[in-house]
Amino acid sequence: MIGAMPAPLGAPVFNDPVIGILGGMGPAATADLLAKIAARTPVRRDQDHLRVVVWSNPKIPDRTLALQNRGPSPLPALIDGVARLQAMNVDMIAIACNTAHAFLDELQASDTTARFFNMISEAVRRTSQRYPEAERVGVLSTAGTRLAGLYAAECARLGLTAIELDDPHQARLVDTAIEGVKAARGFEQPASQIRQAVESLSDLGAEVVIAGCTEIPLVSYEASKVLPIVDATECLAEAIVDYASFDASPQPE
Amino acid sequence: MIGAMPAPLGAPVFNDPVIGILGGMGPAATADLLAKIAARTPVRRDQDHLRVVVWSNPKIPDRTLALQNRGPSPLPALIDGVARLQAMNVDMIAIACNTAHAFLDELQASDTTARFFNMISEAVRRTSQRYPEAERVGVLSTAGTRLAGLYAAECARLGLTAIELDDPHQARLVDTAIEGVKAARGFEQPASQIRQAVESLSDLGAEVVIAGCTEIPLVSYEASKVLPIVDATECLAEAIVDYASFDASPQPE
Repeated sequence: MIGAMPAPLGAPVFNDPVIGILGGMGPAATADLLAKIAARTPVRRDQDHLRVVVWSNPKIPDRTLALQNRGPSPLPALIDGVARLQAMNVDMIAIACNTAHAFLDELQASDTTARFFNMISEAVRRTSQRYPEAERVGVLSTAGTRLAGLYAAECARLGLTAIELDDPHQARLVDTAIEGVKAARGFEQPASQIRQAVESLSDLGAEVVIAGCTEIPLVSYEASKVLPIVDATECLAEAIVDYASFDASPQPE
Repeated sequence: MIGAMPAPLGAPVFNDPVIGILGGMGPAATADLLAKIAARTPVRRDQDHLRVVVWSNPKIPDRTLALQNRGPSPLPALIDGVARLQAMNVDMIAIACNTAHAFLDELQASDTTARFFNMISEAVRRTSQRYPEAERVGVLSTAGTRLAGLYAAECARLGLTAIELDDPHQARLVDTAIEGVKAARGFEQPASQIRQAVESLSDLGAEVVIAGCTEIPLVSYEASKVLPIVDATECLAEAIVDYASFDASPQPE
């Protein structure tokens, strides 16, 4: 360590990883994740940012329909995407879709050596760090994420109770809002639906709400006036930046 | 053609190309391009969107410094990026940086078989289509783009006069605004600088202004109250969607 130069004060110090993003589910949400990674990275100029490879494949079959046994599995397309990202020598892969995390165990069990960020566990962990008093965590997600129990299981693991909407509210407010964002039919109506959904979660005792579908943060501003909202996409971006950065203590030359 | 089925009315009809994006110059601008491609694509669901591969490499040396002979050439890193995208079997490549287009001829002369969109010519052509009466086109760009004469040459080719700022205005208003966006130090001051820059272009007789640096559309809303602004990033997104779509007339089976 002798002779090592500490980084100049205030300069960001990064490993130089290449981050892979499996995206396109949907594409606007992938753009949102990229923007949040850029915004969370402490920089002074372009060259301080992280290198990122994105495979944005909107053709990946609908995750919720597959979980409901109403459509083909997205697993082959997800495995294909991981292989493409690995061919680009990425160090870690982030999946820009909460619902796709229902297939994460199967992805890891496929013969890939890829390592993955887990957006679900990052979102729940960071929610509990940010709101340590909260015990009842509202979750807004696709019907597929809810059916797979992704947030319920992760909340339980951390001693928290996940509060989710019943079928009629899920369908009328959340599913419709997500479809509206994906179809880019204007964000006003989805924003109003998400606000109503958060009001319902508040009535059910939620103290904080996780926006656990990558489309929801695009329309959750109004809803954040009802309860604090933790954006799972933002949590994933933070995890990526945390992974890439190391502290500015002296490094061996 | 007999027996061919016309596409259902109102359904988007697309070729199925894979679009490559050479980005990271800077990363927020790349996210902006992805969001604009998604927003311009006529869809009803995720699966109607285009497949996109992004190589976001913020480490590519600064284009303007190279054009000013004050820094290393970005050409090797650009050639490397093109090779990575081609390894992902992309059909066409878009470069999410106006200034990097100063190296487009050299990129094409390298031994690549890649085909490129040209953001500069798309921006000027679409400006002249959208504002056919305009003869004097203001251009906001990096000092590098201005020095390379990219917009001036393309405007001249179409019989238009490019109006650009003098050195002091360029440095004080435009360069500072672009640096501010890249450093993500808040968008209020850059927005005010870009508005002042457009007021200066208006004083010089510009009738419409091209936002010819991918950082500028992120902060040009205030300026658009002074003169109409054509967003080169938006023009590139339109060119990509136009390339991928074909008309819904009957196709041979």
